[in-house]
Amino acid sequence: MKPNLKVSLVRFAAFALGFVVTGVRAQDPLPSWNDGGAKQSIVDFVKATTETDGAKFVAPEERIATFDQDGTLWVEHPMYTQVVYCLERVPALVKTRPEIKNKEPFKTVLSGNREAMAKLSQDDLMKILAATLSGMSVDDFNAEAKKWIAEAKDPRWKRPYTELTYQPMQEVLQYLRDNGYKTYIVTGGGQDFVRVYAEQTYGIPPEQVVGTAGGTKYGYDKNGKPFLTKEPKLLLNDNNAGKPEGIHMMIGRRPSAAFGNSTGDKQMLEYTKAGDGARLAMIVLHDDAAREYAYGPAQGLPDTKVGTFTQALYDEAKKNGWTVISMKNDWKVIFPFESK
Amino acid sequence: MKPNLKVSLVRFAAFALGFVVTGVRAQDPLPSWNDGGAKQSIVDFVKATTETDGAKFVAPEERIATFDQDGTLWVEHPMYTQVVYCLERVPALVKTRPEIKNKEPFKTVLSGNREAMAKLSQDDLMKILAATLSGMSVDDFNAEAKKWIAEAKDPRWKRPYTELTYQPMQEVLQYLRDNGYKTYIVTGGGQDFVRVYAEQTYGIPPEQVVGTAGGTKYGYDKNGKPFLTKEPKLLLNDNNAGKPEGIHMMIGRRPSAAFGNSTGDKQMLEYTKAGDGARLAMIVLHDDAAREYAYGPAQGLPDTKVGTFTQALYDEAKKNGWTVISMKNDWKVIFPFESK
Repeated sequence: MKPNLKVSLVRFAAFALGFVVTGVRAQDPLPSWNDGGAKQSIVDFVKATTETDGAKFVAPEERIATFDQDGTLWVEHPMYTQVVYCLERVPALVKTRPEIKNKEPFKTVLSGNREAMAKLSQDDLMKILAATLSGMSVDDFNAEAKKWIAEAKDPRWKRPYTELTYQPMQEVLQYLRDNGYKTYIVTGGGQDFVRVYAEQTYGIPPEQVVGTAGGTKYGYDKNGKPFLTKEPKLLLNDNNAGKPEGIHMMIGRRPSAAFGNSTGDKQMLEYTKAGDGARLAMIVLHDDAAREYAYGPAQGLPDTKVGTFTQALYDEAKKNGWTVISMKNDWKVIFPFESK
Repeated sequence: MKPNLKVSLVRFAAFALGFVVTGVRAQDPLPSWNDGGAKQSIVDFVKATTETDGAKFVAPEERIATFDQDGTLWVEHPMYTQVVYCLERVPALVKTRPEIKNKEPFKTVLSGNREAMAKLSQDDLMKILAATLSGMSVDDFNAEAKKWIAEAKDPRWKRPYTELTYQPMQEVLQYLRDNGYKTYIVTGGGQDFVRVYAEQTYGIPPEQVVGTAGGTKYGYDKNGKPFLTKEPKLLLNDNNAGKPEGIHMMIGRRPSAAFGNSTGDKQMLEYTKAGDGARLAMIVLHDDAAREYAYGPAQGLPDTKVGTFTQALYDEAKKNGWTVISMKNDWKVIFPFESK
């Protein structure tokens, strides 16, 4: 091809694509959001950080947005999905390790007595998590978790957990990506567990999932083939201060935008907001018992141990310019299946 | 815009761009490589994994390639660049911590006696690394390291270390990226240190640098502004078995291609090669004393403690279908500045 023709074609192609992209952008990128301050703060942030000649322009390679998962991107009540997974793995675990059958807390889980299970202590839960999330190869764990997530259903909606994502947040993920942002999950949940379904569920690849992570151990099988075994050794507790620490470890840049819903996200939101230039910090308030759940205890909502959102956190949000998202008032629909 | 016009424009734009891209691809993507087995193995791998209808096609989102840094992407002899940095930081460190002035190993470093410094034990070096790479905020460390890397020069070539990258490997990085691969550095060096210059030097962003990593601690300054402090706590020793373990932690996928040069890369190459489908494992042999350095002790080359390449590793490479790159025979030029 003649160089001039090549240049002309590139220019025309760029023009044509630009034209189309502009056409798409003119549509509302956040159709499931009611008009109001929350929606506006997202649109304003994207505009400010992507306008090439703007004072708050962020270079494309520096566009990082981080999202908590449980309670921010999908349902976390009445129990974190991963905890359900671990409890349901106990019978299979006992088959390979019969010696724990009559030991607590496994005995209680095997009894099926939901009242007794609800009373398990944090320590008991940690024992169950450690036992069901380590000791196997990475490949075996991935296969087990993938199978479970494809089959398990939430008891209230009778749908796979992966369908209980929030449609308005799916739109934010897409809108940010369309504007050059890399979207990350930064979750207190297990990194390996969330990586199993994040790509299919949110379009977020494994390398963009930061979560609580245990170590692995490299070794060889009897044929000399190398594999990794999941170890019961905590490398990163990706909650509270662990979130900015994990972001530094895994991403190495301060996010421009962060989204959370509970006290476990406080430090990530502070860290994001403390950077220079335009910063977006948003926090979801679960105030919609009819369509989803209502819990706080901020704003007089019922108290909870799962995804606690205290009044102190609410006050910090208001004081520091974070945007509180009211599920009840800001979201037209909650789940993707409502729109279909 | 009418939908049909939009579709036509997108199709034409895609066609035009595809045409241009094909034109570019027809040029030799690896001009600094001599024709031969090493160059051919790279071209064959890329072709096999990107041909849509091929049996070994790898989906674009799964295209991961990992590169050791020291000795694979740039010069590591006679001393790792980061070790030079740490030794040169000692005088500044003593100003803030005068109590270590007369303590070993700092006393020896301050003496400037190169013979005595060369005899420092591994333990002594670890003490120097810990003292110069932790205790400060992440922002302060980044600023210091950035300043040093911009000013420091290699004593043999009298050029910044960032100019001592291998031109043939820069071409491999670009060639893989042009074909949809995400390129990662997986280094035994400090993750934070390498992240300071990797984007500018190799086009590899911080989030794609996996390295030996210490913990950080979240806290607040006197104005209540949050910041992270680098702690002397090892989270990931990204050498040997730590390389596949670090790849799992930070990327969560097995690479399709991996590049190394020493025993510290053995497990990463094994792990990469053990996956299904087309896999590329390459290892650089420093056999060019005239243009760079010669060390092994594989193939009768001089022994070394920096970037050791044993005969056992050479034999494993040959046995397992890894490609050994001979700097002397496979590379037309070593450094980018030679081509200018």
